[in-house]
Amino acid sequence: MKEFKILEIKKSVFENNDERAEQLRQELKTKHIFLLNLMSSPGSGKTTTLKRTIEALKDEFHIGVMEADIDSDVDAKTISETGAKVIQLHTGGMCHLDAEMTSQGLKGLDTEGLDLIILENVGNLVCPAEFDTGSAKNAMILSVPEGDDKPLKYPLMFTICDVLLINKIDAAAFFDFDLEACTQRAKALNPNMQVIPISAKTGEGMEAWVDWLRDETKTWKV
Amino acid sequence: MKEFKILEIKKSVFENNDERAEQLRQELKTKHIFLLNLMSSPGSGKTTTLKRTIEALKDEFHIGVMEADIDSDVDAKTISETGAKVIQLHTGGMCHLDAEMTSQGLKGLDTEGLDLIILENVGNLVCPAEFDTGSAKNAMILSVPEGDDKPLKYPLMFTICDVLLINKIDAAAFFDFDLEACTQRAKALNPNMQVIPISAKTGEGMEAWVDWLRDETKTWKV
Repeated sequence: MKEFKILEIKKSVFENNDERAEQLRQELKTKHIFLLNLMSSPGSGKTTTLKRTIEALKDEFHIGVMEADIDSDVDAKTISETGAKVIQLHTGGMCHLDAEMTSQGLKGLDTEGLDLIILENVGNLVCPAEFDTGSAKNAMILSVPEGDDKPLKYPLMFTICDVLLINKIDAAAFFDFDLEACTQRAKALNPNMQVIPISAKTGEGMEAWVDWLRDETKTWKV
Repeated sequence: MKEFKILEIKKSVFENNDERAEQLRQELKTKHIFLLNLMSSPGSGKTTTLKRTIEALKDEFHIGVMEADIDSDVDAKTISETGAKVIQLHTGGMCHLDAEMTSQGLKGLDTEGLDLIILENVGNLVCPAEFDTGSAKNAMILSVPEGDDKPLKYPLMFTICDVLLINKIDAAAFFDFDLEACTQRAKALNPNMQVIPISAKTGEGMEAWVDWLRDETKTWKV
């Protein structure tokens, strides 16, 4: 098993998070680093999706991963097996990351030589939506067992994300999940959102997602 | 469809939430009202479990329900069909309820004549765990598709709950969910926790859960 660092994140002292986030975004752009902020509920399959994504893109990009969690390191262990550079960020009970906390993570990871960094945010559909991390793009995962009504209940998260991965699509029949209704609800909040049904378990739909991420990462570098 | 009220919850001004919670708990005890605080991730099946629970207990208790949500009313609509007294609480983006917010909800619901009130907290495994609502007991639902590692990742929630319902147990084989491992992880954090596997969909295990809730409600009244 590959080794990884664990970093205890400190609470931010910056008052203006939006300003700090914009500054960080520009810093990363100058360095040609695409930062993706990946958010979801607990247990929607962020880590499994990430593992598959790294496997698909590891020959094209130098990938780094920041695993934010309250205090475990199970996700960093899983991701370190892919060979990607990984750091575990402990938030010490904090329910989200802001731009300054993300910046602490990037320093801990050491971004030298990387061109794609994925931040796996704390599993939470509420608080992370309120804080710009400085990422180039925001992605979210909604998993089929959570239900097709979630855009109605967590509207801000669906509004601020550029792409929605609907995971565990292989379980749609078992859970009576209405993909069309869910997509319409998400698009009503955010007409520009890309909606991609996937199964990180079977691999279904992963190509469309990987294509999106590849294009965005390459465009960011121009 | 039964009608229900929608209440916009105001941010609390109380500085000492623990004190306010203890005060509310004693007020409710004096009135012989058992308040259950029900927490979980988004989409774990809180509302379906609640619907089944009300159906099982509605001839024994006068039941009230407070549905906390950021801004939808889909859950209150569902619960109102059971005939229970229900109010929808809108948190306006806030990720949890504290004791003063719960108290606002109880006033809006009107507790007169009720003996069992269930608060369906905001879907979130992080923040609601940090705020005592003044409830008699705390219950949480973890659903099988979320994974058996969740006690490792959201330890505070598992620590403060009196009972853990493991829902969607009918899907355990599909998701390679290890019930024994999950139970051990939960009990390591909280040895007194009751762990009850259920399927709100098929009804499996609901009797054990309903028995627990009946006993607790009756004991609270003595």
